[in-house]
Amino acid sequence: MSVLVVGTTALDSIKTPKSENPRLLGGSASHAVVAASFFAPTKLVGVVGGDFPSRYITLYKKHGVDLTGLQKVKDGQTFHWSGEYEVNMNNRRTLNTVLGVVDGWSPKLPGSHETTPYVLLANISPAVQHIVLDQLSKPKFVIADTMDLWMNIALADLLRLLKRVDCLVLNDGEARQLVEEDNVVNALPKIHQLGPRYVIIKKGEHGSILSGPKGVFIAPAYPLKKVVDPTGAGDSFVGGLIGYLAAQKSGSIETHLRRAIVHGSVVASFCCEGFGLARTTKTTKAEIAARVRELEKLVKF
Amino acid sequence: MSVLVVGTTALDSIKTPKSENPRLLGGSASHAVVAASFFAPTKLVGVVGGDFPSRYITLYKKHGVDLTGLQKVKDGQTFHWSGEYEVNMNNRRTLNTVLGVVDGWSPKLPGSHETTPYVLLANISPAVQHIVLDQLSKPKFVIADTMDLWMNIALADLLRLLKRVDCLVLNDGEARQLVEEDNVVNALPKIHQLGPRYVIIKKGEHGSILSGPKGVFIAPAYPLKKVVDPTGAGDSFVGGLIGYLAAQKSGSIETHLRRAIVHGSVVASFCCEGFGLARTTKTTKAEIAARVRELEKLVKF
Repeated sequence: MSVLVVGTTALDSIKTPKSENPRLLGGSASHAVVAASFFAPTKLVGVVGGDFPSRYITLYKKHGVDLTGLQKVKDGQTFHWSGEYEVNMNNRRTLNTVLGVVDGWSPKLPGSHETTPYVLLANISPAVQHIVLDQLSKPKFVIADTMDLWMNIALADLLRLLKRVDCLVLNDGEARQLVEEDNVVNALPKIHQLGPRYVIIKKGEHGSILSGPKGVFIAPAYPLKKVVDPTGAGDSFVGGLIGYLAAQKSGSIETHLRRAIVHGSVVASFCCEGFGLARTTKTTKAEIAARVRELEKLVKF
Repeated sequence: MSVLVVGTTALDSIKTPKSENPRLLGGSASHAVVAASFFAPTKLVGVVGGDFPSRYITLYKKHGVDLTGLQKVKDGQTFHWSGEYEVNMNNRRTLNTVLGVVDGWSPKLPGSHETTPYVLLANISPAVQHIVLDQLSKPKFVIADTMDLWMNIALADLLRLLKRVDCLVLNDGEARQLVEEDNVVNALPKIHQLGPRYVIIKKGEHGSILSGPKGVFIAPAYPLKKVVDPTGAGDSFVGGLIGYLAAQKSGSIETHLRRAIVHGSVVASFCCEGFGLARTTKTTKAEIAARVRELEKLVKF
């Protein structure tokens, strides 16, 4: 079955202690859609400006991404984020953000997108996430990703969104902030009370935690010897996760969710090994399967 | 088989946002010896002053701990640590340390201790760890725990110790410091080069990582809803680990090490649920086994 991803389609300029990489393909939807494409047919809903390089369109197409929902505003500017990482690659700071065509964007979905069963509301304003949900007809499974920014400036919209989604993905700091609870394990039931049946808390190199009706799953992260650029790892994680779910031919979401998380985690590990989408786009399904098998051995006791 | 533990036997005064707890039983050896006692006969090598409360001797005895190696200096003062935890229980600061009888202590082992097969050099100065090792005859498996303090003030002694032990246990920050490597996964082979065949990196609530001749094991931590006092969790972890190893009747260390780590992790989880040793000492083998089974389910995919 197919996956619809809405989120930002951006240009990222990324500085690390070792190099500068201007105007890479980035944005939550770009990372998520490529990650999902390893498993299932994927539709991108996004907006770019006239400055969006055609080679990035080629990259989406290489992954078989349906671009009928990608709007191009000829006289507009593509969303541009620039940031800098510290030596240990754990801390980053935003140098500059230009919203461009994302500012005030109200996506209009092609008719063909209306019945997509798997929906990923990748990180973008809750207002846009609502607009997309409004145009969909009874999706089978909806995942929302978010970030602290929306808790700070659009909390009411976000809380309303949580009543409409099956699964919320956020990082540990965001989980603590959302329900004002220091202990992540204790935060989980409080987040469920806000709406989502499934909650996934991302902890970067420490893996992730799933909470759902059948309890908790502690998921490992693939142990990486070298992190080149973690930008987009969280988006790749959730993209890989929903792609894997959409690819399953039978069985319930519950049955497949743990392995879906592990597959998302593995795609995220490849994302970290190159700038922007450089490593992810070179990844093969066989490489993903090999790391999943490795992870199985790494956690067995 | 039996376990010998050397380390500090201390009085801990612990402040948290919610309460003050003066002169609890603490110290690396106290936590480790009680943790190990759930699995195997355990011998304590330590030193206390005349102020050491008899109720703590009773507590050791309740756990069947062999106290013939516990020296009492009547006119001396027991090692006393006082510290304070922040709201989230992750950061602590030392308020005061009185070394007392630990200062310049040179342990002399009873003859009966010489052939103990499993040896835990719990956190104490590398000088004392060497003195104990010197008095042992071909132990089967030696684990050393350490901390950043010894890297700062006794690095040469510590590096010499690493050539003499089978396994080193340290936390992630200490691992980075020891080999000046930001990436923990990359730090592992560099630590092996310093001597120990097995390296275990503790990551608190994020679990731990074992590295050995047969590769890496990613171990989970038991997800705790409430952390009352994490003091001694690392000591409980390594104590439970070596106790579990010593209790195995057949098979190699390699065969049992992963489950040993999980058992150590579970004992550490109980430690965190009470002040000092309050919760650990009330724990039963059945409770430990139940949490191990729970962890098996929590990580399965």
